[in-house]
Amino acid sequence: MSAPKKISESVIRRLSLYLRILESLERAGQGTVSSEQLANHSETTAAQVRKDLSLFGSFGKRGLGYGVPELARRIRTILGLDRRWRVALVGVGRIGSALVEYSGFEERGYDIVAILDVDPSKIGAEWGDLTVNHITELENIVRERSVEMVILAVPVEAVPAVLDRVTCAGVRGILNFAPTTLRVPEGVTVKNVNMVMEMEALSFALSKEEGEE
Amino acid sequence: MSAPKKISESVIRRLSLYLRILESLERAGQGTVSSEQLANHSETTAAQVRKDLSLFGSFGKRGLGYGVPELARRIRTILGLDRRWRVALVGVGRIGSALVEYSGFEERGYDIVAILDVDPSKIGAEWGDLTVNHITELENIVRERSVEMVILAVPVEAVPAVLDRVTCAGVRGILNFAPTTLRVPEGVTVKNVNMVMEMEALSFALSKEEGEE
Repeated sequence: MSAPKKISESVIRRLSLYLRILESLERAGQGTVSSEQLANHSETTAAQVRKDLSLFGSFGKRGLGYGVPELARRIRTILGLDRRWRVALVGVGRIGSALVEYSGFEERGYDIVAILDVDPSKIGAEWGDLTVNHITELENIVRERSVEMVILAVPVEAVPAVLDRVTCAGVRGILNFAPTTLRVPEGVTVKNVNMVMEMEALSFALSKEEGEE
Repeated sequence: MSAPKKISESVIRRLSLYLRILESLERAGQGTVSSEQLANHSETTAAQVRKDLSLFGSFGKRGLGYGVPELARRIRTILGLDRRWRVALVGVGRIGSALVEYSGFEERGYDIVAILDVDPSKIGAEWGDLTVNHITELENIVRERSVEMVILAVPVEAVPAVLDRVTCAGVRGILNFAPTTLRVPEGVTVKNVNMVMEMEALSFALSKEEGEE
């Protein structure tokens, strides 16, 4: 199996987009797709699509395009979506509790198998099948429940202490919702989501326009 | 007032980070901060901090650092956070309904003043003070309620039709949760949030490591 060393974030981002297009085509019953069509739906060029896919081996047949279910399956494998992942949610404040209710992760193969918090008033609360545990139990829970990723939804102030526990417990993938930059040891991957910061970029753009008018 | 023409996305991102650091220092009662300190908390260099801030005029005094409340106020003004914004939420599916409950937007000055959907079973439902309206009412609502931004939380398939309505109604800022690239007219700013795609980048990274071991 080819194990490419350095794939840029934007390639991965586009693979995620291609997969969504392919799945939508699958639902519509379309059997094959051209690189032009994939490019068209993902704001890129056909050449870029072919280049992205060629990084992971050969796909498709010249002149015939790509088989939709086959390519979808291959991209799922590349993105690690041919298996399920065990995820702990740390922090059940505003964002965390919205995430517990959100079914989008589970649909994609990311199962929340543990919920942790630091607030005594939240410990022991039940969320579906899960009971909120205290953060001091993280190491045990990671081991017992084979947690592979953590969704970090704690206040900025709590990040350093929690992050230290998470990485020491051997978790190597973190989805961070705290509006701060995480410093992690080598081998740990962090992705950031910050909805309010994205809104701030919008209001910056809109304010600037007003200033210019 | 200086109206800088072209400010990169990463500068805006860092301003949002600086603001959060400043607010945390404000809560801790710290009166001044050095560029080194700001840099230290935002994974950048002191020179970069000074360069970022100099884009918007002169701040701070050499050797004395920046006044924490003053700099926070200036950055709030730059990011358009010295006023409130009127936002319509389009789509109350899984993500949309989580966002209605989420208080983080309102705390920052983004008020959800309208909720729209296309699903007849959702129209008329009440969410706090708001009633879900049908998407065909978007144009009227944008005008009557002075909507400035839209949070787009609709399925990919619904995006083209909804996006057309949103831009035609004169909305110039869109926070997009749909996993697709939006094509918008010039003058419209789009920011994307896709939590599941970020998870896919994590599982890609973790799968790759396993393959290499």
